[in-house]
Amino acid sequence: MAAVTPDEHERQQDGHCRARVNLRPAAARPFGAAARAALKDTLFPDDPFRGLGGMPPARRAWRVARYFVPALDWSAGYSAASFWYDLLAGVTIANLSIPYATLAGIPPVIGLYSCFVPPLVYAVMGSSRNLGVGPVATSSLLVASIVGGKVRASDDQRLYTQLVFTSAFFTGVLQAALGLLRLGILVDFMSRPAITGFMGGTAIVIMLQQLKGFLGMTHFTTKTDIVSVLRYIFHNTHQWQWQSTVLGVCFLIFLVFTEQVRRRRPKLFWVSAMSPLLVVVVGCVFSFLIKGHKHGIPIVGTLKRGINPSSISQLKFQPEYVGVAMKAGFVSGMLALAEGVAVGRSFAAMKNERIDGNKEMVAFGLMNLIGSFTSCYITTGAFSKTAVNYHAGCRTAMSNAVMSVCMALVLVALAPLFRHTPLVALAAIITSSMLGLVKHREIRRLYEVDKADFAVCAAALLGVVFSTMITGLGVAVAISVLRALLHVARPSTSKLGRVSCGSGAGAGAADDDHAFCDVAQYPGAATAPGILVLQVAGSPVCFANAEYLRERIARWVEDEEKAVAGEDLLYVVLDIGGVTAIDSPGIEMLREVHGELERKGMKMAVTNPRMAVAEKLVLSGLAELVGESWMFLSNGDAVAACRYTLQGSKHGGVPPV
Amino acid sequence: MAAVTPDEHERQQDGHCRARVNLRPAAARPFGAAARAALKDTLFPDDPFRGLGGMPPARRAWRVARYFVPALDWSAGYSAASFWYDLLAGVTIANLSIPYATLAGIPPVIGLYSCFVPPLVYAVMGSSRNLGVGPVATSSLLVASIVGGKVRASDDQRLYTQLVFTSAFFTGVLQAALGLLRLGILVDFMSRPAITGFMGGTAIVIMLQQLKGFLGMTHFTTKTDIVSVLRYIFHNTHQWQWQSTVLGVCFLIFLVFTEQVRRRRPKLFWVSAMSPLLVVVVGCVFSFLIKGHKHGIPIVGTLKRGINPSSISQLKFQPEYVGVAMKAGFVSGMLALAEGVAVGRSFAAMKNERIDGNKEMVAFGLMNLIGSFTSCYITTGAFSKTAVNYHAGCRTAMSNAVMSVCMALVLVALAPLFRHTPLVALAAIITSSMLGLVKHREIRRLYEVDKADFAVCAAALLGVVFSTMITGLGVAVAISVLRALLHVARPSTSKLGRVSCGSGAGAGAADDDHAFCDVAQYPGAATAPGILVLQVAGSPVCFANAEYLRERIARWVEDEEKAVAGEDLLYVVLDIGGVTAIDSPGIEMLREVHGELERKGMKMAVTNPRMAVAEKLVLSGLAELVGESWMFLSNGDAVAACRYTLQGSKHGGVPPV
Repeated sequence: MAAVTPDEHERQQDGHCRARVNLRPAAARPFGAAARAALKDTLFPDDPFRGLGGMPPARRAWRVARYFVPALDWSAGYSAASFWYDLLAGVTIANLSIPYATLAGIPPVIGLYSCFVPPLVYAVMGSSRNLGVGPVATSSLLVASIVGGKVRASDDQRLYTQLVFTSAFFTGVLQAALGLLRLGILVDFMSRPAITGFMGGTAIVIMLQQLKGFLGMTHFTTKTDIVSVLRYIFHNTHQWQWQSTVLGVCFLIFLVFTEQVRRRRPKLFWVSAMSPLLVVVVGCVFSFLIKGHKHGIPIVGTLKRGINPSSISQLKFQPEYVGVAMKAGFVSGMLALAEGVAVGRSFAAMKNERIDGNKEMVAFGLMNLIGSFTSCYITTGAFSKTAVNYHAGCRTAMSNAVMSVCMALVLVALAPLFRHTPLVALAAIITSSMLGLVKHREIRRLYEVDKADFAVCAAALLGVVFSTMITGLGVAVAISVLRALLHVARPSTSKLGRVSCGSGAGAGAADDDHAFCDVAQYPGAATAPGILVLQVAGSPVCFANAEYLRERIARWVEDEEKAVAGEDLLYVVLDIGGVTAIDSPGIEMLREVHGELERKGMKMAVTNPRMAVAEKLVLSGLAELVGESWMFLSNGDAVAACRYTLQGSKHGGVPPV
Repeated sequence: MAAVTPDEHERQQDGHCRARVNLRPAAARPFGAAARAALKDTLFPDDPFRGLGGMPPARRAWRVARYFVPALDWSAGYSAASFWYDLLAGVTIANLSIPYATLAGIPPVIGLYSCFVPPLVYAVMGSSRNLGVGPVATSSLLVASIVGGKVRASDDQRLYTQLVFTSAFFTGVLQAALGLLRLGILVDFMSRPAITGFMGGTAIVIMLQQLKGFLGMTHFTTKTDIVSVLRYIFHNTHQWQWQSTVLGVCFLIFLVFTEQVRRRRPKLFWVSAMSPLLVVVVGCVFSFLIKGHKHGIPIVGTLKRGINPSSISQLKFQPEYVGVAMKAGFVSGMLALAEGVAVGRSFAAMKNERIDGNKEMVAFGLMNLIGSFTSCYITTGAFSKTAVNYHAGCRTAMSNAVMSVCMALVLVALAPLFRHTPLVALAAIITSSMLGLVKHREIRRLYEVDKADFAVCAAALLGVVFSTMITGLGVAVAISVLRALLHVARPSTSKLGRVSCGSGAGAGAADDDHAFCDVAQYPGAATAPGILVLQVAGSPVCFANAEYLRERIARWVEDEEKAVAGEDLLYVVLDIGGVTAIDSPGIEMLREVHGELERKGMKMAVTNPRMAVAEKLVLSGLAELVGESWMFLSNGDAVAACRYTLQGSKHGGVPPV
């Protein structure tokens, strides 16, 4: 391997020869260019329009259009074979569209409406091929808990429903705006452990809510925490109706059984996928035959026939209501986004496909925006539907369109048939789908691998179960963000020593490769007396850690002085090769450290500053202060130079190295 | 330098010999120990109780007491000579205690009270030897703007004052709690550029408020933004009184002149330090002689004689008021903390002393808590007083006690004499002290060195001047925190190449040292075909950047494949030596990258994982997946091993290295 350096021929006069650190003072990029490059890398990490420059305008426009409307991408090569797979997948997931609407406190038919328009929009705009969209339990309950704080569904169902539509509108606006502004980055701050804990907690809360159905109760508390719910239930034993309980338990056992069948034999996925429909049909027939609603089995009631009516005129933008609608829309929108993107990514990873978070956001946003105009409430990528879609072998987003058509048929023709559905059947279906969301195995793995992640997960879960969903989510996100900030505030400093590792088999040199490693990790690493090599890594040096680093470096130096009590500590080498950026308080800190060391009669050397850091060092004059001959490319180089000067000053001769 | 490695004698069977990466699976620290170590380093970076274990209990208790009450530390060695310096400094800064209380909208005498009790408390508890404490302009105005939003001082002066006391109480609680919880770290997130901008903006806003005094106006707007203030002034020209203006301009010129004298000759610091007192005395005599208040020169009015009355019964904890008092207390408390700690640190740095942020917080907290019981409002370390203190040569916190005693004498004996003070004299004093806070030189330097820091500074300044102080502060802190988060969300990835640097003069080997550096920075760095060395640095690998890193690494690999179109890319070496921590989403990401590379027929190698990362790699089973023989200590080692296998597989022989 040939060693080529830009200024290899420059030799220092002071006795050691080395390649110069590239400080590039002349090549300092203007702020505009640097900021553009940083922005591009931050917002467009996937760089979607690479190599577009050379194309003719028409082809370029087509390529951009295909980027924004993925349907154009797959529709060209769409074949009959693909259609059959998509049809099978679509019909199957339509069966899963059992209304989550009851969770959101709105009429069940709105849940059906929400399975018609949004999947159609997603089929055109979405970038994932597997994602099945529709209402999901977590967002439904979240919307209910926020909107319910302002207007109770039981008091004014009409106003309540209008607020739910309005919140879907704001969800759409938020999601589309985040996508267009390429702020997919925000979703990254909802960490996987936080979402696991939140969803686990929500599943428990939702199952608690289903006790209403299982016990055949007609009233229920609006609170969601476990203490309030259990207290309400046991204070209202007179509402219990055993008929519902018996029916519900039967349904639940059947559903859990079919789910087990699917787990053991993935090929039989359609058994578990069709079972909700079967439960609904059996429930309808049964309660119709025995007139269940007169015998302790409450039913859904009238469902209007016909597809989605327009709801544009129902959106409420009055100052009195817009606040709560916005809050419900934004909070549940962020959550739905995180859930949808996460679901899409997990399944895409299995097929080795790529999902573009920003594009997904725009698709979700449009789907909710158009949904809010057509009597739909918040929808996103749903785990259960996506799983069925995947196992049914869907090929393109067309499966969503098929599901949408199936749902339209149901709405036009079959809706009235469902009025006899016992509420307990819905409760059983929801409960069975929630069981899989408490991911005890994943939680146990978190406990084993990373206790801090486990703490985030547990905080989210317990927060949701014992307080409110917002509390749980807020706590989890706050802990995650604080952890991220802590990493910035407390970068790692370590004392390095030389570890040698023979690199070439059969090569001539006996000691031809070495690394400088943490002496705490490699206790045998060799250190040179009088020279302290300190590494700063793990975070840019900035305002948030400048003061900490100053104190920490001072303590390292003090400790080293005590440790080498016999000899003087004369050189401190700062390895900042792992520091990617530095801001002005960071520069000030280095200046202070340099001053402090100088007062103690020590010399500071700097190893391998990266380009962005080197620019700042030169601009601020710190490079001049330290001296260019004290900036080295490698720790080995720095230590050798220090040793040379050290021994030269002691013995006045050329040192043995 | 002897090269010693823990398992130097272990040789690999596959043809290249090297020191093994220390994965320490057996030595994985239990979570408790690891968390304790991390917590200790996070909260006690200064490790105050080092070496306490071996002491007898009595000495240990004495040492701990000295740690918490610094007065015990310096009082033992306090000498008469020190006292004279402290007396000079104390008398001088007492002169500077011209009431900022008018800025806070409370009676001026409360400003005097606030210069009596808090300095006394600080003299006992504070760790800084230079800091002069008292009310400061920024916090005063901030409290006024928040409390004024609830109750206008002109409507109900009594209630307003009570709320200001209550907010001081909450300030004290917050500051003491932060200190006791060792959360000094929070202050670190108010960056220097943000504070510079905020203080500059506040200085401008405060000067605008002084136009009331300069124009002799009796009413004024409660708004602080430049547009509202100027509009009010020019809509109320009938209130203007030229007598005040003339007097004010004379005072201002005098004050600016003495300040210039101090700058040119630092030894004459007492000229500028005494000038505010002179202005007050001259103003009093002048307005007493010409009966100024009848000739367009409004005066302060009656000041009650006597030291601080108790204000415990005046604290308002009713639900109606507690919210606004808490907000005012917390926001201005955080700001006062940041300002006080920053001032203390800057002056301590000049004398090469150390300030403990957490101890300072406890001292500030107690000072405000006790202050709120004794008719004081929010106080902190003040820049002007500290500067005078420093130049007057103070030795210990005793100077604060002396100032406190001087103030008590004024309150007991001289207060009534000040009733004729013209308001315009106070306006001139405040204006002259604000002039120095718009640090145009520092702002220009920020512009030159770091445009992003300049943007934070400018946002804070413009936010304060054109909107409200809270807006300015909020925007600046939000930008700072977002920048810190961005560093975490977008770590740096770069392709490395080998740069050789001859380390030893006169040593035998021709190529005995090298470094792996960014090829973008060192275009001549040598890369090996078929092997891609990627460095991840700048942030821990965690949930916030896992997805980004996956995409970015995939793009690097794609780009490299295109670049070496002729030959196959077979090895990807990930240099994670600069990664200080990894969480479970980060581990998942590495697992996915490994899987993706394997599907492409590439081999992933890992270089120099640090201890915390190695622990996780082992626990999660990823170390096993990658294979321990593909984890290397240095990039040179990794590349050599890849080359060996590469060439071995091509030619079937031992490769030339």
